[in-house]
Amino acid sequence: MTTSKTASNVAAPTQFLQAAEHGYAYRRFGEGSAWPLLFLQHFTGTLDNWDPAITDPLASGREIILFDNAGVGRSTGPVPPTVAGMAKHALAFLDGLGVATCDVLGFSLGGMIAQQMAQDRPSIIRRMILVGTAPRGGEDIMLLEKPSLAKYLTDANLRGYALLQKIFFAPTESSQAAGAAFIERLAQRKEDRDPRSGPAVAGAQMAAFRDWEKFTGDRFANLRNIRQPTLVVNGIHDEMIHVSNSYWLSQNLPNAVLLTYPDSGHGSLFQFHESFVRHATAFLTSDSAFAPY
Amino acid sequence: MTTSKTASNVAAPTQFLQAAEHGYAYRRFGEGSAWPLLFLQHFTGTLDNWDPAITDPLASGREIILFDNAGVGRSTGPVPPTVAGMAKHALAFLDGLGVATCDVLGFSLGGMIAQQMAQDRPSIIRRMILVGTAPRGGEDIMLLEKPSLAKYLTDANLRGYALLQKIFFAPTESSQAAGAAFIERLAQRKEDRDPRSGPAVAGAQMAAFRDWEKFTGDRFANLRNIRQPTLVVNGIHDEMIHVSNSYWLSQNLPNAVLLTYPDSGHGSLFQFHESFVRHATAFLTSDSAFAPY
Repeated sequence: MTTSKTASNVAAPTQFLQAAEHGYAYRRFGEGSAWPLLFLQHFTGTLDNWDPAITDPLASGREIILFDNAGVGRSTGPVPPTVAGMAKHALAFLDGLGVATCDVLGFSLGGMIAQQMAQDRPSIIRRMILVGTAPRGGEDIMLLEKPSLAKYLTDANLRGYALLQKIFFAPTESSQAAGAAFIERLAQRKEDRDPRSGPAVAGAQMAAFRDWEKFTGDRFANLRNIRQPTLVVNGIHDEMIHVSNSYWLSQNLPNAVLLTYPDSGHGSLFQFHESFVRHATAFLTSDSAFAPY
Repeated sequence: MTTSKTASNVAAPTQFLQAAEHGYAYRRFGEGSAWPLLFLQHFTGTLDNWDPAITDPLASGREIILFDNAGVGRSTGPVPPTVAGMAKHALAFLDGLGVATCDVLGFSLGGMIAQQMAQDRPSIIRRMILVGTAPRGGEDIMLLEKPSLAKYLTDANLRGYALLQKIFFAPTESSQAAGAAFIERLAQRKEDRDPRSGPAVAGAQMAAFRDWEKFTGDRFANLRNIRQPTLVVNGIHDEMIHVSNSYWLSQNLPNAVLLTYPDSGHGSLFQFHESFVRHATAFLTSDSAFAPY
């Protein structure tokens, strides 16, 4: 267990862990007396998609653990086609690291994995931050064929980070400016970068989204078993995973505070990174049994 | 303009202001460099319905101004049957006090008055906190005949504060315990209390709610003109004014953060008073043009 002395996602070396017959790529940096914080990443995102404006301030006070799930970045494959399969990998990874309990920040797909982990092994999560994500049985989840997204995704001039700026931020001057700043921050890391995700990653993750929309029996009943204090965060104009999913989360999780940000989309945490870090810090620093912070 | 040396709603003397041919009852206490904070009260509530656990900590840092609208408590009547009429009184009161700009905390009916004031005279409000309230054109606003409310309102054994505990807090052990503590705090003030509101107040205020539900043209379009940084707060199980109204507020106000609390109803700010005061303080202390704090 090595903690990088360079407590920044711009410079922290990528490490590799062999566990459960898989090789997992991860970065671990920061220190402090608070619980370690595991970051679970969005659709096609790698270690290099974590904004240092979020990871670095949170790393002063706690260990940050960034993690490539199976088949993503430099972790060995294949990518499971279900959230449950991805949660198994995250648990195997934490077991391999020797982390028995931690806090979790799950963004988008990562938030679904966090919910699944909380159900599969409640003891492993102390407090949970769910950003831009959806409960099982949610709606309007990653419908890339929607006109509001398709117009960017089918634009041959938009690739990589430029595309991310369009689809993660709202179509306002202020939000796009925040998106441009976000992209610049991601580009600060020059070496030891993950390979970009290709169609195989995207295909399996999209299958996981379609499966996650399905539910049987009492809709959202599974959320009522998740007792961990939870902070749900969403940009109010999120086109990728509609904010109504965060309403369902906060209405059905028994112990969740909801925070929504104006003038922002899927990447609200990156747009309002200073505010987000303040809220996340206050929430994670609390040791109350109740979510309000 | 007298500021009470006793910076608490338990002890601050009630004062009276003559303005625009009305006599307005109010309390003013606290001091500090932040902007004055005007409190606008809920259905049938008087100066004595403001929880000292909210008013007193906020009074260390700023002046708090509690206000009985026309016809309520010891302010002269009649109670206007529209929110617009109530907003006129609040503006006349601030003019009489000589307050040209302030922050506003509007709870329930008071939140509607705050929105109306922001439209009628934008310069008078710097930042706004809207708790348990609804936009014009909202739904499920104070439907007292709903079974979930009528079962308490028609119970002859429940009167005054005991009724308030039932309808302002969620039907869980933890929320009802918080309600009991709230009632105890309200009862701390022994002298110089307002008379309770009677049927004339309730009738005119209910007429104002029914009018507030009506809208013409583009629903919620009026919210897009309110540029003030706004913090919207709601208990997730609010039976008096459904949380969906806070969703509409945060989706249509261009500059609003939404915060919802779990395990709570209309009185979420009183249940989680320590958290609410922290958030309100952080929000009000900010001088950013943007709502996120």
